[in-house]
Amino acid sequence: MDVVRHLGRRVKTLRKEAKLSQEELAFRAEMKRSYVSDLERGKRNPTVRALGRLAVALGVHPAELLQD
Amino acid sequence: MDVVRHLGRRVKTLRKEAKLSQEELAFRAEMKRSYVSDLERGKRNPTVRALGRLAVALGVHPAELLQD
Repeated sequence: MDVVRHLGRRVKTLRKEAKLSQEELAFRAEMKRSYVSDLERGKRNPTVRALGRLAVALGVHPAELLQD
Repeated sequence: MDVVRHLGRRVKTLRKEAKLSQEELAFRAEMKRSYVSDLERGKRNPTVRALGRLAVALGVHPAELLQD
């Protein structure tokens, strides 16, 4: 699967595991809620630095956001 | 370590393991050689899609570019 779409699915899965709303994740990662929504649907191609902020916000290693 | 600097070190390590020059990696990943050079020194913050191209060019899973 396309890496951007895969990232979106991983973020959604990990966010739900962390029991966070899109709004809570967005606040923690210093993003807009709409950006998180787009990201989870594979409509955004974030930078690696933004990926790092998402990982911190989700309490996971950055590599986990790209793993199968 | 900062995620962008860490990525740079991983790319350099994996490139050397693959016995590729910066120029060869750049060609395979459709980047400029100077971009690869900057990236390896942590001076570039690529997008996830660019990270995906690097992974294909290096013959590794995208997550490997961020792993410890």
